[in-house]
Amino acid sequence: MSGFVSFVSSGPGDPDLLTVKALKRIAAADAVLFDDLSAGPILDHARPGADLVGVGKRAGRPSPKQGSVSQLLVDYALTGAKVVRLKSGDAGLFGRLEEEIDACRAAGIAYEIIPGVTSASAAAAAYGIPLTRRLTARRVQFLTGHDVTGALPQDLNLAALADPHATTVIFMGKRTFAELAAKLMGQGLDPAMPAVLAESVSTPDQRFLRATLATLAPLISGDGPALILLGPLMDP
Amino acid sequence: MSGFVSFVSSGPGDPDLLTVKALKRIAAADAVLFDDLSAGPILDHARPGADLVGVGKRAGRPSPKQGSVSQLLVDYALTGAKVVRLKSGDAGLFGRLEEEIDACRAAGIAYEIIPGVTSASAAAAAYGIPLTRRLTARRVQFLTGHDVTGALPQDLNLAALADPHATTVIFMGKRTFAELAAKLMGQGLDPAMPAVLAESVSTPDQRFLRATLATLAPLISGDGPALILLGPLMDP
Repeated sequence: MSGFVSFVSSGPGDPDLLTVKALKRIAAADAVLFDDLSAGPILDHARPGADLVGVGKRAGRPSPKQGSVSQLLVDYALTGAKVVRLKSGDAGLFGRLEEEIDACRAAGIAYEIIPGVTSASAAAAAYGIPLTRRLTARRVQFLTGHDVTGALPQDLNLAALADPHATTVIFMGKRTFAELAAKLMGQGLDPAMPAVLAESVSTPDQRFLRATLATLAPLISGDGPALILLGPLMDP
Repeated sequence: MSGFVSFVSSGPGDPDLLTVKALKRIAAADAVLFDDLSAGPILDHARPGADLVGVGKRAGRPSPKQGSVSQLLVDYALTGAKVVRLKSGDAGLFGRLEEEIDACRAAGIAYEIIPGVTSASAAAAAYGIPLTRRLTARRVQFLTGHDVTGALPQDLNLAALADPHATTVIFMGKRTFAELAAKLMGQGLDPAMPAVLAESVSTPDQRFLRATLATLAPLISGDGPALILLGPLMDP
């Protein structure tokens, strides 16, 4: 008998931003494998006796142990367990979900994905603005600020990212934003374009810092979870 | 005394994809103003006696009545009511939220935004794939397939959209996809690029149709709610 893996999106952090379906899957799980960012009160929904396994990956810090996380997931499922793999934000966005899906397939284990609230939506909502706006911000794009080495990816589509009529949300981009901002200004994007740093979205530590493309980078510090929203953003 | 407006994301359709916070706001509301796509079982969560007001806007069909929806919202709030403005998917994505926010501000009414699961995340999840993938799909972008006249917007950033290393999700793009696909192929995007039509995501009518950039358009029919996912998508 083989188990079943539910890749469950835990949302941006606030337990009230879990979906009903996510709660049901967590409550029914025999084992819950979670990252640091999806720990805390969300795990209170697991049933007594369920195995709660921290796999120690922090969003923004690709782990050398991705292979062992996938292996652990498969090992649990092969015992016949209902396994929940909890992923912060929306599981399908920058969660390296494909590697864990590939491991399930290779082992013949059925899986499902439960979508969730991405921290990009939560950041804009908490700041009081929409991500898109008719006429002025018709396109929205999400990217990561680093590749597996921690550096800004070198194959960025600058024409896409320097678009003054798009909202751009950079995940895990604190450390590389100075470099990215310089590239975007070099590409012609207005240095006065609004840029908002959104830290620890939807948690008690939530904090916003509004600046511009030119002025934000020197104001960034620390390594807590954060997004950067860039574009013709509304004032909340 | 003035009321309060909660812009509540109702998610893609499945009531189990509502967040806990959305359920709380709906249950506490004196009035719920909803679009067609956020009607149905979701409204069962409203308290007996709450006013349930269909405002008749369908996603994908910008209504000439946007002004009157905003006015109705304000009028309800000015009676002192707790008003929920239910918006399908994530309220901050292509929901013309800015116009209703502006109306609240002009009338001095406080508001909040409750983020939700975008139908883009729900479509990928139901299809069994992530929206991003390390190395091959590092950027994801969402756009609408039409402007207020119903036509394909003429100011598209084709360099952004024809990127073979991005996942592109087109909202409300069924009628204009033939024209968009031609433009993207003209810009050099591979005609064999996977393209998936996702209809009525997360509802009992959910249906997926996998084709390519070159072959999808003639297979599209009807005017039900749908997304088109384009890019180096995984096979589920």
